Amino acid sequence: MSPKITTELLKQLRQVMKSPKYVQEPVQAYIVPSGDAHQSEYIAPCDCRRAFISGFDGSAGTAIVTEQHAAMWTDGRYFLQAAHQMDNNWTLMKMGLKDTPTQEDWLVSILPEGSKVGVDPFIIPADQWKRMSKALKSAGHDLVPVKENLIDAIWADCPQRPCKPLITLDLGYTGVSWRDKIVALRSKMAERKVPWFVVTALDEVAWLFNLRGSDVEYNPVFFAYAIIGMSTIRLFIDGDRVMDPAVREHLQLDSSLEPEFKIQVVPYGSILTELQAVGTGLSLKEKVWLSDKASYALTEAIPKAYRYLTPYTPICIAKAVKNASETDGMRRAHIKDAVALCELFNWLEKEVPKGTVTEIIAADKAEEFRSQQEDFVELSFATISSTGPNGAIIHYKPVPETNRTLSVNEIYLLDSGAQYKDGTTDVTRTMHFGTPSAYEKECFTYVLKGHIAVSAAIFPNGTKGHLLDSFARSALWDCGLDYLHGTGHGVGSFLNVHEGPCGISYKTFADEPLEAGMIVSDEPGYYEDGSFGIRIENVVLVIPAETKYNFKNRGSLTFEPLTLVPIQTKMIDVNLLTQKECNWVNDYHQKCREVIGAELERQGRHEALQWLVRETEPL
Amino acid sequence: MSPKITTELLKQLRQVMKSPKYVQEPVQAYIVPSGDAHQSEYIAPCDCRRAFISGFDGSAGTAIVTEQHAAMWTDGRYFLQAAHQMDNNWTLMKMGLKDTPTQEDWLVSILPEGSKVGVDPFIIPADQWKRMSKALKSAGHDLVPVKENLIDAIWADCPQRPCKPLITLDLGYTGVSWRDKIVALRSKMAERKVPWFVVTALDEVAWLFNLRGSDVEYNPVFFAYAIIGMSTIRLFIDGDRVMDPAVREHLQLDSSLEPEFKIQVVPYGSILTELQAVGTGLSLKEKVWLSDKASYALTEAIPKAYRYLTPYTPICIAKAVKNASETDGMRRAHIKDAVALCELFNWLEKEVPKGTVTEIIAADKAEEFRSQQEDFVELSFATISSTGPNGAIIHYKPVPETNRTLSVNEIYLLDSGAQYKDGTTDVTRTMHFGTPSAYEKECFTYVLKGHIAVSAAIFPNGTKGHLLDSFARSALWDCGLDYLHGTGHGVGSFLNVHEGPCGISYKTFADEPLEAGMIVSDEPGYYEDGSFGIRIENVVLVIPAETKYNFKNRGSLTFEPLTLVPIQTKMIDVNLLTQKECNWVNDYHQKCREVIGAELERQGRHEALQWLVRETEPL
Repeated sequence: MSPKITTELLKQLRQVMKSPKYVQEPVQAYIVPSGDAHQSEYIAPCDCRRAFISGFDGSAGTAIVTEQHAAMWTDGRYFLQAAHQMDNNWTLMKMGLKDTPTQEDWLVSILPEGSKVGVDPFIIPADQWKRMSKALKSAGHDLVPVKENLIDAIWADCPQRPCKPLITLDLGYTGVSWRDKIVALRSKMAERKVPWFVVTALDEVAWLFNLRGSDVEYNPVFFAYAIIGMSTIRLFIDGDRVMDPAVREHLQLDSSLEPEFKIQVVPYGSILTELQAVGTGLSLKEKVWLSDKASYALTEAIPKAYRYLTPYTPICIAKAVKNASETDGMRRAHIKDAVALCELFNWLEKEVPKGTVTEIIAADKAEEFRSQQEDFVELSFATISSTGPNGAIIHYKPVPETNRTLSVNEIYLLDSGAQYKDGTTDVTRTMHFGTPSAYEKECFTYVLKGHIAVSAAIFPNGTKGHLLDSFARSALWDCGLDYLHGTGHGVGSFLNVHEGPCGISYKTFADEPLEAGMIVSDEPGYYEDGSFGIRIENVVLVIPAETKYNFKNRGSLTFEPLTLVPIQTKMIDVNLLTQKECNWVNDYHQKCREVIGAELERQGRHEALQWLVRETEPL
Repeated sequence: MSPKITTELLKQLRQVMKSPKYVQEPVQAYIVPSGDAHQSEYIAPCDCRRAFISGFDGSAGTAIVTEQHAAMWTDGRYFLQAAHQMDNNWTLMKMGLKDTPTQEDWLVSILPEGSKVGVDPFIIPADQWKRMSKALKSAGHDLVPVKENLIDAIWADCPQRPCKPLITLDLGYTGVSWRDKIVALRSKMAERKVPWFVVTALDEVAWLFNLRGSDVEYNPVFFAYAIIGMSTIRLFIDGDRVMDPAVREHLQLDSSLEPEFKIQVVPYGSILTELQAVGTGLSLKEKVWLSDKASYALTEAIPKAYRYLTPYTPICIAKAVKNASETDGMRRAHIKDAVALCELFNWLEKEVPKGTVTEIIAADKAEEFRSQQEDFVELSFATISSTGPNGAIIHYKPVPETNRTLSVNEIYLLDSGAQYKDGTTDVTRTMHFGTPSAYEKECFTYVLKGHIAVSAAIFPNGTKGHLLDSFARSALWDCGLDYLHGTGHGVGSFLNVHEGPCGISYKTFADEPLEAGMIVSDEPGYYEDGSFGIRIENVVLVIPAETKYNFKNRGSLTFEPLTLVPIQTKMIDVNLLTQKECNWVNDYHQKCREVIGAELERQGRHEALQWLVRETEPL
C-alpha cells in the first residue's frame, strides 16, 4: 500500500475554499465527512469524497482541511490503514486516545479569530452540525453551509452517481403492498398528529415502495427520497428507471388510483426546494417528521418550530419487524446459503491440505457457490476470509498484500453473506482443517457457550437487546477473556445487512425493545492478536417463547436460528459444555441435517450432503 | 389513614402567592418539590414541605398549587397512599400512565396567558429548572425563583432545622485524613484546571471532613456546604457544633496550620452570598465545579460560562471506592449485624408459632438486637418487615393499619439494616416458619440462582454494573418470571445506604464502571401480588478476581459477600440448583458458620449459635 500523493489536490481544494465561484465568503477550513446525503453506512464511489481527497478509504473517518493543515480523524480499527494510505500532508488524529483533540477543539486551537468553517449541508447530519456549530460559535467562529460540494468541484474524473435499474418485489416477497405500507405509515403520522413525513434513508425508501436497486455495492438500494403527506406521495428519483413498464405497473403510475395513493415522481435533485415549499405551506401546529439523523440541509428546510425529529422513524421500526412472507423468505435464503457453505467447506476440506487455497480464492469460491443458488443477487458485504493471525483483525478483508494461504495448522474464519431476492444472510464459521490445539478448542468452546447463551435465552417481551449482551460474554469472562465488539445487529430482509433499531451490544444505545419478528445476528468471538480469531455467528429470528409461568401477562421471547450451517464439532471441548449446551448443539445439528440435507438432496449435491452428515454427528 | 384537610392551608398559600411581602410580583402557580437544598433522598422534618401542604408523605412527589387547582405528581408506588392521604382539594397525577400530563403540559393547559410560576430556587435542581423554564417560556409563561419559601411562610409550627452534635471519625475508621482528602480533591481539580469546587450533597461534606451527624433520620449527615479552593477551605455549618472541643481538634481549627488547610467556618445560610463573591472574582478561564444536580440557586450564582458541571463529583467517585480501613469496618459492621439477625431469627422461630409476633414487633425486635451491638448508631432505613401479601409491596413499612401477624403459613420478608460507627448494613432474608409450598420454594430458588449469578460473576475491570443485571434475572426469565426493580445500589461506609455512582440495574443510567473497593447490594426478588414477596439481599464488595487468562492485561473483578447471614435452606429446591450453585451455598454457609459462629461464641450467645449451626448445614 503506498500513500496517495495529495499535494496538488489540497492546493486545488484550498483555492476553491477562497473562490467566489463556490463560496460566498472564503472559508478557512473545510470539513469532509464520510457519509452520503442519506447517512448510509455503505456508500457509492461518487460519494467517496474523503477517500478521494486523502487516500484513506476505511469505512469511518472525517477529513478537515485548513489553509495550513490537513487532518484525518478515525478510530482504532483504521489507525494502521490510514497511516499507510495518506501522505505526509496529513495528520492522523487517533480517536479514542486521550491526547487526541476533538475536531472542534482542534479547529478552535488553530483557526485565526472569526474564521468560517465550511461543510456540505447535505452530507452532515443535523445533530453533528448542531454540536459543531455550537462549539465553533462559542469560540468566535462560524460553521457555514457550502452548497456546492468543494471536493466535487476539484474531482475531475468523479464517477457518475449510479442510476441502475430497479427490481420490483411482489407480495410473495414483501407480504404487504406499498399501498398498505403507506396506509400504516399515515396512521402512525395521524397518531402523532404529524401530517408530513420525509423518508431520507435509502433502505427506508426501498422498503416503503417494495423496490430494490443496486446503486450501492452490497446494499440493494437506490438513490431516492420521498415526502409522504396525508394525501400525497412524492418520490424523488432520477433517470428513466421509472419508465420501465414493470416499475410503472408496480407503482401504478398509469392507473387511475385514488388521489391519495397517486405517486408523483419528482427529480432526485429537487428534494430541497420541494421540502422548503412544504415548510412554508405549514399552518400552525402542523409538523414535519424527520429522522434526527437526516442531513442538516433537509432539517433546516423546515422551520425549527415545525420539526418533529425522532431517533427512529416509524418506517425503521416497522421494517425491523418481519412479517410471515419476509420470515419465510429469510428461511429460504438461509437454506440456500447453507447449501453454498456446505459445498464450500466440503471443497476446502479437500483442497486446503494441498496448500493451494488462499484467503481470496476461498472468498471467491464462497461467492461462486452462492451465485449458483436461485434468486442470488450479490454479496451482502465484503467477505471476511481470514486465516491464522489475519483472523484476529476483526474487519479484515483479504487483499493481495495480506493474502495468506489456508493450511492445516491454522484456524480459518469466514464471515460472509449474500443478498437473495427472498432474504439477506450473514454467517460466520470458524474451522480447523487439521488438528486444533487444546487452547484453540478451549477458546472456541467459550465462544460457543456465549453464542448458545444468547440463542437459547428466554426473556420478557419488551426487553432491549443490550440486556442480553453479557450472556454472550459470561463464559469468556469467567476465564478472564472477552471480545471488543458488540454481539449482534439487526438484519434487513433483502436489504441492508446492518439495520436498526435493535441490536445486542454492551454499548448502551437507544435500541428499541425486541419483539417477535425482529431479526438480529448472534456473533460473539475471541481474538488473539498475532495468532487467531474465532467467531460463531448465526442470524436469529425473535419468536414467542413458551414458559411455565407468565408474570404480569407480559409473554416471553426467545430466538430461532435462521442460519443452519454446522458448527465444527472438532473445535469443541465437550468437557466444557453443560448437558443443556450439548443438547443445544445436537438439536441444532439435527435441524441442519434435516433441513439442509433435504435441500442438498434436492439439488443433487451428494458430496456436500455426505460432508453435512459427517459434520452433524451428535456430540 | 384519613386525609389531611388542606382547605385552610391552600387558602393561606394562595394569599402569600400574591403578597408583596413574599413575592415581587404575584405568582399564578407555586411548585413544591420533594427534596431539600441538598437533593437528599431522605429529608429532615423541616424539609417535608410537600407533605405539610398536601398530607401526602411518600418519598417521591411534586405538588403544584395554582389559584384554582392543587395537583400532586407521584409514581406507581404511591398512587394508593397519596389517594388516601390527600383530601379532595387535590388532584392526583399518576405518573407513568399514558394520559397523565407532565407538570409543564398541565401548567400550560390551565394557566392564564403570561403567568408566573414560582419555585424555591434552593429546592429545585438546576437541570429540572432548565427543563421546566424552557417549556413554560415557549408557552409564554415565566418560571421565577421565589427566595422566601412560601410553605415556610404559612407553616406556623414548622420544626426547626436540626442541628445535632457532630461525630468525629478517626483514621481507624476512615483510613484517610480530611487533609489528605482535600489534597486528593485539589489534584483532581488541578487535572481539570478548575480552581473551585462546591460540595452540595450532605454525604459528600460528611465524607470529606470525616465527620458524621444525625440531622436526617437513617443518614448520618449534617446540614452543611463547603467551598474548596486551591488554597482555601470554607465549611458552611450552623450552631455551636464546631465549638465542641473534639470537633475543633479534629478540624484543627485552633492549630497553626498551613494557610491552605485552614478551615474557615462560615454560617450555613451564607453559602449563596459567598459563592456569588467567588463567581464575581473569577478571572478568565477560571471555572467552578458543581454537581449538575446542585440547586438552581447555587448553580445560578456562577455565571454560565464559568460553570463546570458533572453528573458525578470527584468526591462521589472517591467516596465509592472504599479503602482498607473502610472495608475492614464494613466487615466488622456486617459481623455484628449478622449476630443480631441470628438472634432475631432464632427468637422468631420460637415465637412465631405462638401467634403473638406482628410485623411491627418483629421490626422492633430486630432493632433491639442490633442496638446491643458495639458502635450501633441507628437504623440505616425504615425496616421492611412484611409477611404474606404485604411482602409483595416492595417498599412496605408496617403501620398499625396494615400490621399483620407472622404465622407458620406465610412467607416472611425482612429487609433491614443499621448504621454502626464502622459501617452501614442492608440485608434481606426471606423465611418460612412452617412448611413452604413447592411453588414458594421454586420461586425462592430462582431468586437465589439470580443472587448467586451476580455474586459469583467474574467480569473485566471497567465493566459497568448495569451489564450484570440480566444475570440476576436469567433463572426467573427462563420460567416467565421477573421482578420490577433494579438489582443493586451503592452502599456508603457509615453513610447513606443508597449512594452513587454505581449500581446494578436494567435501567441504563450513567453509572461509573465498577472497581475494586466499591460496595453494592445484590438483591433480586420475586413478588406475587396478594400472596407473597421473596428477596435475597447481600451487601457485596468488589474485589479482584483470579482468572486463568488475562485478556489485554485488563484484570478481572468479582464480589465478596460482606453480609454473612444464613439463607434459609428449607426454602431451597435443591433439584433446581447446579452443582456450582450448590457449592456456592455450602461455601457461603461454611463462612457464615466460621465467622459469625466465632463472634456469637465470643458474645456468649449460645442459643443463637445453635440456630446458626442448624441453619448452615450443607445442602
